[in-house]
Amino acid sequence: MRLLFVGDVVGRSGRQILSERLPGLVSDYRLDFVVVNGENAAGGFGITEEICQDFLDAGADAVTLGNHAFDQREALVFIARQDRLIRPINFPQGTPGRGVGMFVARNGARVLVMNVMGRVYMNAMDDPFRAVERELEACPLGDQCDAIIVDMHAEATSEKQAMGHFCDGRASLVVGTHTHVPTSDHRVLPHGTAYMSDAGMTGDYDSVLGMEKDEPLHRFLTHVPSQRFTPAMGEATISGVAVEIDDQSGLATAVAPLRLGGHLEETVPRFWKD
Amino acid sequence: MRLLFVGDVVGRSGRQILSERLPGLVSDYRLDFVVVNGENAAGGFGITEEICQDFLDAGADAVTLGNHAFDQREALVFIARQDRLIRPINFPQGTPGRGVGMFVARNGARVLVMNVMGRVYMNAMDDPFRAVERELEACPLGDQCDAIIVDMHAEATSEKQAMGHFCDGRASLVVGTHTHVPTSDHRVLPHGTAYMSDAGMTGDYDSVLGMEKDEPLHRFLTHVPSQRFTPAMGEATISGVAVEIDDQSGLATAVAPLRLGGHLEETVPRFWKD
Amino acid sequence: MRLLFVGDVVGRSGRQILSERLPGLVSDYRLDFVVVNGENAAGGFGITEEICQDFLDAGADAVTLGNHAFDQREALVFIARQDRLIRPINFPQGTPGRGVGMFVARNGARVLVMNVMGRVYMNAMDDPFRAVERELEACPLGDQCDAIIVDMHAEATSEKQAMGHFCDGRASLVVGTHTHVPTSDHRVLPHGTAYMSDAGMTGDYDSVLGMEKDEPLHRFLTHVPSQRFTPAMGEATISGVAVEIDDQSGLATAVAPLRLGGHLEETVPRFWKD
Amino acid sequence: MRLLFVGDVVGRSGRQILSERLPGLVSDYRLDFVVVNGENAAGGFGITEEICQDFLDAGADAVTLGNHAFDQREALVFIARQDRLIRPINFPQGTPGRGVGMFVARNGARVLVMNVMGRVYMNAMDDPFRAVERELEACPLGDQCDAIIVDMHAEATSEKQAMGHFCDGRASLVVGTHTHVPTSDHRVLPHGTAYMSDAGMTGDYDSVLGMEKDEPLHRFLTHVPSQRFTPAMGEATISGVAVEIDDQSGLATAVAPLRLGGHLEETVPRFWKD
Ligand SMILES: [Fe+2]
Ligand SMILES: [Fe+2]
Ligand SMILES: [Fe+2]
Ligand SMILES: [Fe+2]
Ligand SMILES: [Fe+2]
Ligand SMILES: [Fe+2]
Ligand SMILES: [Fe+2]
Ligand SMILES: [Fe+2]
Repeated sequence: MRLLFVGDVVGRSGRQILSERLPGLVSDYRLDFVVVNGENAAGGFGITEEICQDFLDAGADAVTLGNHAFDQREALVFIARQDRLIRPINFPQGTPGRGVGMFVARNGARVLVMNVMGRVYMNAMDDPFRAVERELEACPLGDQCDAIIVDMHAEATSEKQAMGHFCDGRASLVVGTHTHVPTSDHRVLPHGTAYMSDAGMTGDYDSVLGMEKDEPLHRFLTHVPSQRFTPAMGEATISGVAVEIDDQSGLATAVAPLRLGGHLEETVPRFWKD
Repeated sequence: MRLLFVGDVVGRSGRQILSERLPGLVSDYRLDFVVVNGENAAGGFGITEEICQDFLDAGADAVTLGNHAFDQREALVFIARQDRLIRPINFPQGTPGRGVGMFVARNGARVLVMNVMGRVYMNAMDDPFRAVERELEACPLGDQCDAIIVDMHAEATSEKQAMGHFCDGRASLVVGTHTHVPTSDHRVLPHGTAYMSDAGMTGDYDSVLGMEKDEPLHRFLTHVPSQRFTPAMGEATISGVAVEIDDQSGLATAVAPLRLGGHLEETVPRFWKD
Repeated sequence: MRLLFVGDVVGRSGRQILSERLPGLVSDYRLDFVVVNGENAAGGFGITEEICQDFLDAGADAVTLGNHAFDQREALVFIARQDRLIRPINFPQGTPGRGVGMFVARNGARVLVMNVMGRVYMNAMDDPFRAVERELEACPLGDQCDAIIVDMHAEATSEKQAMGHFCDGRASLVVGTHTHVPTSDHRVLPHGTAYMSDAGMTGDYDSVLGMEKDEPLHRFLTHVPSQRFTPAMGEATISGVAVEIDDQSGLATAVAPLRLGGHLEETVPRFWKD
Repeated sequence: MRLLFVGDVVGRSGRQILSERLPGLVSDYRLDFVVVNGENAAGGFGITEEICQDFLDAGADAVTLGNHAFDQREALVFIARQDRLIRPINFPQGTPGRGVGMFVARNGARVLVMNVMGRVYMNAMDDPFRAVERELEACPLGDQCDAIIVDMHAEATSEKQAMGHFCDGRASLVVGTHTHVPTSDHRVLPHGTAYMSDAGMTGDYDSVLGMEKDEPLHRFLTHVPSQRFTPAMGEATISGVAVEIDDQSGLATAVAPLRLGGHLEETVPRFWKD
């Protein structure tokens, strides 16, 4: 089974490359399942119902979020009717929406998608490890489902790596999001879980985290805001991670980054070309 | 001019691959200058005089540090006599050692090496941007020196990217350290500075940040320490970034990651093979 | 019913004034129930079984803790057999000990004692509000028990005040600990819960948080440790808060600070002298 | 010499009690000099020129600020022409306004007023200790000036206490602001500097930090904002600290809190009544 996870889409530039490239990727490479992190899709802050629908129309099977989940307040409402939008599972009980969802892939596989937030240098959410544990126990890989994807939205590499090892052998993929920088530590962990500390951002890398660089630089230099943050509008890169998943075990057999367009070195998984 | 920067060396496993591989890299690829971040070299915490000398003997021209600079207290002393050991420049005035040094490369070029710490989610150092500004003004690239390397030891990708743009056109390389995960956002910024958010760690990646994974996991799960952190002793990866620097301008013409050994996908800069 | 809560006892100096003054306070003022926060009792870090017993012998009915709960590792063991030692309730499930206890006061009243940790600028514990909610619902004040004391061990005044309002009308007292500075915002909240942002420290105030001031100052100035922290050994102040609790409702009718000895202005609750 | 320092004035409720009570306090108790922290005066966020003038008209001789200094952007402009408005001295070089000012008190004394921000759990400002050191050296107490007031705007009690000891014998008063809760650790330090960890807030204490309590509580419970923060409009308390300063040495001979109005226990310095 062939999976693609796309990192945080930032603003119009990021949405544009996604809508341009994702349909072709899905058909050219016969992708069975696609997850897109959309927490920064609407002007850098949150997601709207229309944008979420655009992502699904472009080929996403599920859209995950993060600390910016509800920056657009309409998400608090439409998330109730949009099953394919997954917010961090460790928001407090009573938060609208859900943190986990089961979906059927194009190849018929049952795929569990989870979104969870780290707590180091971030907001005080519920325990991410116990939240993930509960779901992994309720839906064992290779038994109740055929693939499990954990989007670990976190700042600290220590917490992300710990989550990788914690899930190793029990999930198909643990992938970090939130730092907006792709890492090159993708690999299959000893017990079969694919891991990458961050999927990177889908947006304009000639920026600070996908936002026009002037204002962030101004704030670092003066500690006084001068204007709002706005997404950078230059050419975007689509950045993500691809996993080959064993149909029987649900574990990963290969993992590789995907980067197309924009300012970064391009790469397409070699195993997609076979 | 051909430069190599090697990310945080962690413990014995990291030191071993460095001593095994660096001499060959220097000679095989005719490297003109090598910088190694050594803040975690001694059991994961700090550096000793002996280890520092080993790095220099293996081919390093300068050794940089970070928040763990003085974890081994002897570093507070021997740094005074070891000119090639560079600690973050924005420690408070009066801190032993220096945050910047000028060295002559094997090709005769004058290379300025700077180490600076970010402040987001880190200790309250002096302003990293103004500290770097002072040095860039005092020693203009292509005029007073032939290459400038800035090791930005920081947690937040926003602060690292801001530092990259801040130095763009005025330094040869701005490279992040500290997260112990290599990033794949290496590129030459619009005005000619090579940039990569993190050089990654030189150590055993089957770990949490290079340390045995049991104790970090235990702490995430219980919030109570059980034992000390110890470096993971599995096969290490040497991880860093290579830059081709224009002899006239001191700006970068190419940048690429280096990863050899251990659990990560290996890569050697194509431009080294020409 | 007459209650005394004593703030974080720090080191030998703090323990000494507690053992000297508490027995007299209990008898002179006919105190019905005494809680002592002991998280810094053993050299500033944690508590031992012997010290805990000393506190109980001196008149404490319960001993609460905080982020330093298990700095002395023996506490992980003896807390299992010491029912009167209460650690923060929002440590993860499986942590030794308990976060709440019911005790019988000298006047026969059933007193529920809870310890909970804030999360702002602190470790990532479980949700303190939901943890407290659960206990308040399981044991309604004036029904299942005659008094409820919540020790909110937290850094941020915002989170402490929020906890006060959250419990208002459902607890007898919400008192902050952890900052080691007594506040003068003691009052009965609109629905009858006594509140004080911090009970202060029981220790030597000619210090930094009860520790010898040289090393903390050194670290603020240099960002490099020079030696261990050691408790200041000067004359200590016993610092806490006294509450009069209505026998029927369990709500507070009066609240006032207690400070005796050492360098701070002394004060004894006027309502104790009637 | 008789000094009053008034803690963070929050919103209309805080401004109202200040304008009602301050003129009477100045005349009734023959106050020689008054400082007011105004960082939250305008709707809880920053200060306007009009409000600043109102404070001066009501009897303030200087107005200090904090992390909210420039929340009202007009402050970036009018601070240039308003010498009596003092912002944290350790903002980066180039920040509009000044962090220290010398003023003549009603008794003819020369009073140096400084505002400085802590860095623990706060924004990354320049080193507060070195910033204060520079001013203390440039203007020795009892020589170049007759009184020195340091408003240490900080979160952590450790950093505030360290600043107190750091200035002990060299300033008349080190008083903390920012937590919006008055502390009762006022005292004269061993070398003659009056100290109090926090002056408290001048505003409605039936609130969270002076703001309507519903929204802060909502955010603690849900981690999703529901509306803006608005100042609580109930009866305010004026909260501050009074110091008697020796005319020769400039050191403190007595220190006591002031609290009038609202929900807290009222207190007026005994030494004012003599
Ligand atoms: Fe994001
Ligand atoms: Fe995020
Ligand atoms: Fe490191
Ligand atoms: Fe580091
Ligand atoms: Fe404590
Ligand atoms: Fe504590
Ligand atoms: Fe503030
Ligand atoms: Fe304030």
